[in-house]
Amino acid sequence: MLAELYFKRHPGWWKMLTVAMCMAFVACLQAQELQGHVSVILLGATGDLAKKYLWQGLFQLYLDEVGKGYSFSFHGAALTSTKQGQEFITKVLESLSCPEDMAPGRCAQLRGQFQQLSQYHRLRTSEDYMALSKDIEAQLEHEGLREAGRVFYFSVPPFAYADIARSINSSCRPGPGAWLRVVLEKPFGHDRLSAQQLATELGSFFREEEMYRVDHYLGKQAVAQILPFRDQNRKALDGLWNRHHVERVEIIMKETVDAEGRTSFYEEYGVIRDVLQNHLTEVLTLVAMELPDNVSSPEAVLQRKLQAFRALRGLQKDSAVLGQYQAYSEQVRREQQKPASFHSLTPTFAGILVHVDNLRWEGVPFFLMSGKALDERVGYVRILFRNQAYCAQNEKRWVADQSPCLPRQIVFYIGHGELGSPAVLVSRNLFRPALPSESWQEVEGRPGLHLFGRPLSDYYAYSPVREQDAYSVLISHIFHGRKDSFITTENLLASWVFWTPLLDSLAHEVPRLYPGGAESGHLLDFEFSGTQLRFSRPQLEQLVPGPGSAPKPSDFQVLRAKYRESPLISAWPDELIAQLAADIEAAAVWAVQRSGEFHLALSGGSSPVPLLQQLATRHYGLPWAHTHLWLVDERCVPLRDPESNFQGLQAHLLQHVRVPHYNVHPMPVHLHQRLCAEEDRGAQMYASEISALVADSSFDLVLLGMGTDGHTASLFPQSPAGLEGTQPVVLTRSPSKPHQRMSLSLPLINRARKVAVLVMGRLKREITMLVSRVGHEPKKWPISGVLPSSGQLVWYMDYEAFLG
Amino acid sequence: MLAELYFKRHPGWWKMLTVAMCMAFVACLQAQELQGHVSVILLGATGDLAKKYLWQGLFQLYLDEVGKGYSFSFHGAALTSTKQGQEFITKVLESLSCPEDMAPGRCAQLRGQFQQLSQYHRLRTSEDYMALSKDIEAQLEHEGLREAGRVFYFSVPPFAYADIARSINSSCRPGPGAWLRVVLEKPFGHDRLSAQQLATELGSFFREEEMYRVDHYLGKQAVAQILPFRDQNRKALDGLWNRHHVERVEIIMKETVDAEGRTSFYEEYGVIRDVLQNHLTEVLTLVAMELPDNVSSPEAVLQRKLQAFRALRGLQKDSAVLGQYQAYSEQVRREQQKPASFHSLTPTFAGILVHVDNLRWEGVPFFLMSGKALDERVGYVRILFRNQAYCAQNEKRWVADQSPCLPRQIVFYIGHGELGSPAVLVSRNLFRPALPSESWQEVEGRPGLHLFGRPLSDYYAYSPVREQDAYSVLISHIFHGRKDSFITTENLLASWVFWTPLLDSLAHEVPRLYPGGAESGHLLDFEFSGTQLRFSRPQLEQLVPGPGSAPKPSDFQVLRAKYRESPLISAWPDELIAQLAADIEAAAVWAVQRSGEFHLALSGGSSPVPLLQQLATRHYGLPWAHTHLWLVDERCVPLRDPESNFQGLQAHLLQHVRVPHYNVHPMPVHLHQRLCAEEDRGAQMYASEISALVADSSFDLVLLGMGTDGHTASLFPQSPAGLEGTQPVVLTRSPSKPHQRMSLSLPLINRARKVAVLVMGRLKREITMLVSRVGHEPKKWPISGVLPSSGQLVWYMDYEAFLG
Repeated sequence: MLAELYFKRHPGWWKMLTVAMCMAFVACLQAQELQGHVSVILLGATGDLAKKYLWQGLFQLYLDEVGKGYSFSFHGAALTSTKQGQEFITKVLESLSCPEDMAPGRCAQLRGQFQQLSQYHRLRTSEDYMALSKDIEAQLEHEGLREAGRVFYFSVPPFAYADIARSINSSCRPGPGAWLRVVLEKPFGHDRLSAQQLATELGSFFREEEMYRVDHYLGKQAVAQILPFRDQNRKALDGLWNRHHVERVEIIMKETVDAEGRTSFYEEYGVIRDVLQNHLTEVLTLVAMELPDNVSSPEAVLQRKLQAFRALRGLQKDSAVLGQYQAYSEQVRREQQKPASFHSLTPTFAGILVHVDNLRWEGVPFFLMSGKALDERVGYVRILFRNQAYCAQNEKRWVADQSPCLPRQIVFYIGHGELGSPAVLVSRNLFRPALPSESWQEVEGRPGLHLFGRPLSDYYAYSPVREQDAYSVLISHIFHGRKDSFITTENLLASWVFWTPLLDSLAHEVPRLYPGGAESGHLLDFEFSGTQLRFSRPQLEQLVPGPGSAPKPSDFQVLRAKYRESPLISAWPDELIAQLAADIEAAAVWAVQRSGEFHLALSGGSSPVPLLQQLATRHYGLPWAHTHLWLVDERCVPLRDPESNFQGLQAHLLQHVRVPHYNVHPMPVHLHQRLCAEEDRGAQMYASEISALVADSSFDLVLLGMGTDGHTASLFPQSPAGLEGTQPVVLTRSPSKPHQRMSLSLPLINRARKVAVLVMGRLKREITMLVSRVGHEPKKWPISGVLPSSGQLVWYMDYEAFLG
Repeated sequence: MLAELYFKRHPGWWKMLTVAMCMAFVACLQAQELQGHVSVILLGATGDLAKKYLWQGLFQLYLDEVGKGYSFSFHGAALTSTKQGQEFITKVLESLSCPEDMAPGRCAQLRGQFQQLSQYHRLRTSEDYMALSKDIEAQLEHEGLREAGRVFYFSVPPFAYADIARSINSSCRPGPGAWLRVVLEKPFGHDRLSAQQLATELGSFFREEEMYRVDHYLGKQAVAQILPFRDQNRKALDGLWNRHHVERVEIIMKETVDAEGRTSFYEEYGVIRDVLQNHLTEVLTLVAMELPDNVSSPEAVLQRKLQAFRALRGLQKDSAVLGQYQAYSEQVRREQQKPASFHSLTPTFAGILVHVDNLRWEGVPFFLMSGKALDERVGYVRILFRNQAYCAQNEKRWVADQSPCLPRQIVFYIGHGELGSPAVLVSRNLFRPALPSESWQEVEGRPGLHLFGRPLSDYYAYSPVREQDAYSVLISHIFHGRKDSFITTENLLASWVFWTPLLDSLAHEVPRLYPGGAESGHLLDFEFSGTQLRFSRPQLEQLVPGPGSAPKPSDFQVLRAKYRESPLISAWPDELIAQLAADIEAAAVWAVQRSGEFHLALSGGSSPVPLLQQLATRHYGLPWAHTHLWLVDERCVPLRDPESNFQGLQAHLLQHVRVPHYNVHPMPVHLHQRLCAEEDRGAQMYASEISALVADSSFDLVLLGMGTDGHTASLFPQSPAGLEGTQPVVLTRSPSKPHQRMSLSLPLINRARKVAVLVMGRLKREITMLVSRVGHEPKKWPISGVLPSSGQLVWYMDYEAFLG
């Protein structure tokens, strides 16, 4: 109104204004020409995800970018007929919403523009893609626009990826100088192999930098804040973010919905593949990784992430607890026309215990948990710090934000739950965090609201100034080429490498049934002991019998019998290893009580690996500080060579226990930069070390294996040394590489107080049968010469080796 | 009444009854003769303890034992005149009380008898004791009684012990066949030496089995229940009572009273000697010790206790926090006529962090705390278990006695506090404990009562059926010869061995002042980090300035200057060590980037210990897996000898980090069971190991120290080897023991890329001054020969070494 008045009084101004506006318009056109045109092709444009998030995300992108120098066109694509597709899109576009603070008229105007820029294409064949490309090129030419790039958003099932990728690569790449970005939605494979295949296939069509794999959790504001938070609060966190101060980390995503209507997908994937392998694992790496100097360098972050993956301790079957909500199997039967006898084994709930085996995190439990049909919808990462304080006053007098005895925690609240929005919470008795004030603001008081055991007022609590949908955030990042919010191929494969062995070992596990919602009570609570996770309370009755009728280890008892007139212990592998480890612990405790020391000689090879792991992670009672570790045999390679037996001992045992340096006795196979040279007298050196330290050269326990040729230690059939004679330690030759070996001799082995022979696997069946029948013929079958003169011999064989 | 009626009707029965009664009386007399007579002599009978507890305890003994076959006489003794003493005793005896369930008439009758059996004696000289003995003998003869034994209860100051003991031994021992029991009250010495002297002195008068050292805490019902509880609940506790499940143990005795009126005693002892060295330490051993098979065998319990003492990690100055209530110094000044300038350093509050270094308890913090003028009177032992569970439901739905996520704890509630009586509490989500039902009963509900963070209803809670005073319990145990409730000499000395070094190191510490009562707020809260304990919040102002007005570390910045033309870094010890550790990490990261390896050579001695600890606990970024550790010098002792430099490296660094076995290079000082024999060529072996593994024999970093004689490494002034020449590693002689050493030579050290010389402490001031002025004179001052040919030399000196 004021302007109108002004122009009425100064009519000459009109001309000037018109000229100015024309100039601005031209500048605007030039800017557009400068930045170019972007075509966004949404594949699967009529699908659920597109309807729910992606069109809205594209509209948000348009709202954010309009007038900033780019022009856009949006192409919805699917297999649906053109007519149906157009109808669908028209409907979706009408329902697009603008930010709350935008005037309705402006919103309607921009939505109208967006609708005009959007069209539907049926894309089935390579020719269709070529046609689309031509359309785009024609439009560019017609409007005189330079092409900046093309985004292809794959919102399609993974089986369709390859064909589409091939078509894009062959027929729909943008012109020279323009970029291509293909956006991929999970699932990215089903396990390590399929993920690798898919990655290889995609890699034949696209370059790594062209691919944007979406994990929408990385677009969640609280998740996206983890690294910046760690960076901006380095000083306060520096001394805290480690095993000395962190008691546990919880990475949780709980859902109230179930899988109804989606069982065809869910039945194939289950909760671990659906949520843990991707979302929760990404969060895990953000918490656990070493912080790079520059957290905004995608390359530096990726390297630290990969380093974190390498530090993850491999998951065992008993690292997990699985559940399935009770109605699930019925839903699958209904939706997939399965017979009444069908029972699914697919878990809809999983709790996982993860350990990060590095100096920062050793011993800190990371709980990952997700499930459907639970009592609330909420996602969070909670870092709980140890209580290292004693408060001298009665707890009634503790002032909440001052007492060091109240829980100290940092929570990245991903969303929903009782708080209802993303947030970052830091206990007031910890420190006042720094957060970017333009995007995070302090949460207003909510009397009565308790979170993680404490009232909200106990926390410095921040929530986003403007809440943003994860897909909108990510679509904006794709447009701006911010690759750090996406999953690279290396990252993806590292995650599958971590999860696949667990998934394989759980394939036939029967999940615990739970009623769902609040009804589940304490049924899904779980706890750990050592590295083992289990439900806190036993399930009183299995509501549905598990399908697998294969015998389980627990169906058998450990079998005790005789073999070659010595005691034989036979069991399934897990039980066998557990029994042997327990026997070793008992021997150790007894030896230390008797003499103050325990001398254990271990064989190399792969059989003892699970035993070493068992000893390292389960046998805290073993008096490691008083244990001496000796080698039964060694390959003539440097000790740090992957083929060295000692290297296996280092990796699987020494890393994890506290045996004093001088109690560890590797064989001196590498002296004077030579390997097992006679003149270096390594065997004699080892013998004199044994004679000096081991009373009567009589080991407390010697662990042996048995080869398919009847060899034991590195004593092979027809060996000229070690089967008899006075030399305690000998150099020998193996028929297989590396040929040169050092080995304890049979006479020395037979001085031991106890000899355990561990034999595992189907391949050993034949030799086991054979050796059971031969007499004392060490020249032919060195194992037959194992007969402790005054000690005890015990055979440990798994059922496959013993029963075949 | 019924009996009266009966006898009226059957008059003949009177005679028979009379006969029966006479027979009973005779039997009774015979029984007395059979068991004999016990004389109890209470020394210090007019003192506070006697008045408050001991006379009552003796009366309780009489009530318990009367008519059970013993006759008694009670002799109050003191230095007071006979008249005054008699008056005192008469008064005390009149106020003695009976158990609640005893009829008043019966009580009066028994009290009367007790008064008649009690008399006062003035005992000053040896002759007085002889006279007392004669009195007793005369009475025995007069009444025709056999002597069973004599109890002497020492309720006197310790300086009087020796004279009294001598007099008893020489003049007042009971006759042949009767026992002597002397009961001793703390303090049992002031430190290790005085306790040993006192024990030796007492040992010259009494046999070990004659001495009963009272720690009245062992008579507290909840304390006395610890071992029986552990025994009777073995099955449930077996898997729980260890570091994998116990998060912490708190052993607490809080008082509201202060030391007013007792400062002459208190000023000499303080809270650690008064409460921690005895009461809380006894409780600690009961919790920590391995449970013997037979918990009622005093000998077995003692052995396990002593074993527990041996496992205690030595306390450092920073294992403790000390406080003193604000009014204390004024009370001392008043009561002891001290000048206004007097400020006491005696602690009235102490928090101590104890670690038990065995496999069961490694890493579990034991908090011991006691203080006067606190906000409440309470004593307890609390065992808090780790929360190893994740609860899948929102905490609102946790059911208190079912959720594994609520605190799990066992509390031996010694007394007072909000509960007001002794008790044993076990969280309901843990297990239902077994307690002897004849002596312990379930506590009735007390709505609104919260203990240790949870309502009383969350616990299985038991209290004694009949509450008993500790002294009554112990006096009964003395009478029955139950030695397991008393402190043996071995036990006592073990405790002083543990506490004395701490007491010595704290002798000049200024305790934090606290106002007392609830006013103290969070001022006395403390927390640990590693093995270090500190108050949780800084004291804003020292209410009374501590004596030392020495500057504090924060008063200075790290100083950068030059020393002998090389860079000098000077700071307070903490900053200096932090800077050096950071520089080592930077050098390591750089070396590994450059060559894949970091070769670090470390000196022995005590200076590097805080550095090693800093590296182990703060430098997670140090690439340990690629670090090689070498020794700069070594003492010619076996590697596991406490004097070995390598042993220090093992204890303070290797234990805590993950350096691969083959990257650790101890010096070969112990070959062929000989130490540093020339003919074993250990120095040459080490040199060739260096030459084989370290490129160009050029270490990435060599850490040296400097002795007060100017020596460095183990290169001493006038050393015939190592100061020049071509031998990289040499055998040398130290002027101090152990004389024989192995050392890197100056020429080898000077090949290093970087040499850091760490010099700390006031004792180094003079040599630091001197060396700053001398030229290159390695023969006189070996340190002056440190001059890396192409590397860098940096001096790290703390202010005391540099500024004096």
